[in-house]
Amino acid sequence: MKILLIGANGTVGSAVKAELAQRHDVISIGRTRGDFQMDISDSASIRSLFEQTGRFDALVCAAGSVTFAALGEMHEGDFELGLRDKLMGQVNLLLIGREYANDGASFTFTSGILNRDPIRTGASAALVNGAIDGFVKAAAIELPRGLRINAVSPTVLVEAMDSYAPYFRGYKPVSAADVALAYAKSVEGLQTGQTFIVG
Amino acid sequence: MKILLIGANGTVGSAVKAELAQRHDVISIGRTRGDFQMDISDSASIRSLFEQTGRFDALVCAAGSVTFAALGEMHEGDFELGLRDKLMGQVNLLLIGREYANDGASFTFTSGILNRDPIRTGASAALVNGAIDGFVKAAAIELPRGLRINAVSPTVLVEAMDSYAPYFRGYKPVSAADVALAYAKSVEGLQTGQTFIVG
Repeated sequence: MKILLIGANGTVGSAVKAELAQRHDVISIGRTRGDFQMDISDSASIRSLFEQTGRFDALVCAAGSVTFAALGEMHEGDFELGLRDKLMGQVNLLLIGREYANDGASFTFTSGILNRDPIRTGASAALVNGAIDGFVKAAAIELPRGLRINAVSPTVLVEAMDSYAPYFRGYKPVSAADVALAYAKSVEGLQTGQTFIVG
Repeated sequence: MKILLIGANGTVGSAVKAELAQRHDVISIGRTRGDFQMDISDSASIRSLFEQTGRFDALVCAAGSVTFAALGEMHEGDFELGLRDKLMGQVNLLLIGREYANDGASFTFTSGILNRDPIRTGASAALVNGAIDGFVKAAAIELPRGLRINAVSPTVLVEAMDSYAPYFRGYKPVSAADVALAYAKSVEGLQTGQTFIVG
């Protein structure tokens, strides 16, 4: 399969690449690194990416930013990054990318644990994650040509605990390699409309 | 309790008013009708409302618009109404309204079944509903002064089946009066961070 991997240089993306590159042609895409560069918050940048990569069999997005801040200090504008980047960035990967997707291609997006098991400063992340989980469930039933869409919703990563541990006390972290398996299940299996929870 | 009811003239809102007005002072707010008028997609309009109503003990929002359209015909802009109106409109009711909320006040928002049990044309609604469910779960744990926040997630209404039945074949509708009970549970009970599913 020809797989487009967005966020390929991140902790999750690197593990997904290590897992999928054993069996497939993985094209690495990042904001500043990789085979191609793209900004998921910019739909023109998304379209430009697909014009360069051509048609594909699977797209994995392991990228997306949201604002983490104490709710008491958040105002409307603090939700904008999550809405534009992690949420609509991923939605736009489907809305635009479907034109370049081969029959039977899959889209695998990233949500996360915080809408199921919230933490301090996580209100925007929880909003965005819930939106992604809801979107993939609904979008899946309307996709033509055997196209599929799933989300992977990981808990905090072992590899991130050096910096994130104070926010995730009591959370049992999972390895990026274990998280990568869920992306492989989405890409190489046949399920659609699912949120694969890891951790 | 002094309760602000947004969307008071809608099918759900009318039933919520019938339920809560038996025991409380319910102020009706609508886009064009009611005791006060407000556009939830406009944060200035939200602030203006609270300046007029003064402090309150509970806020119920049974309003919010999203675009229903076949996914195959949707583009980025078709998600904007849901993001600005039903989603950020309700988020802003909390972000702005908390300044006017008495200690122990509650916020009760409306999501809906479509992120759990999707239908054709429901991708934007599913996205928004999932976002609301995730937001209330996360926001609840950070609220000060005993403030609470919940969502009510109803299935299709008996009263709406005349027009919506073709979209909801096989769904068992619930009466607006039954849905109103969930709002009463949120307002008059003590739970927080919950999505009360009706139907």
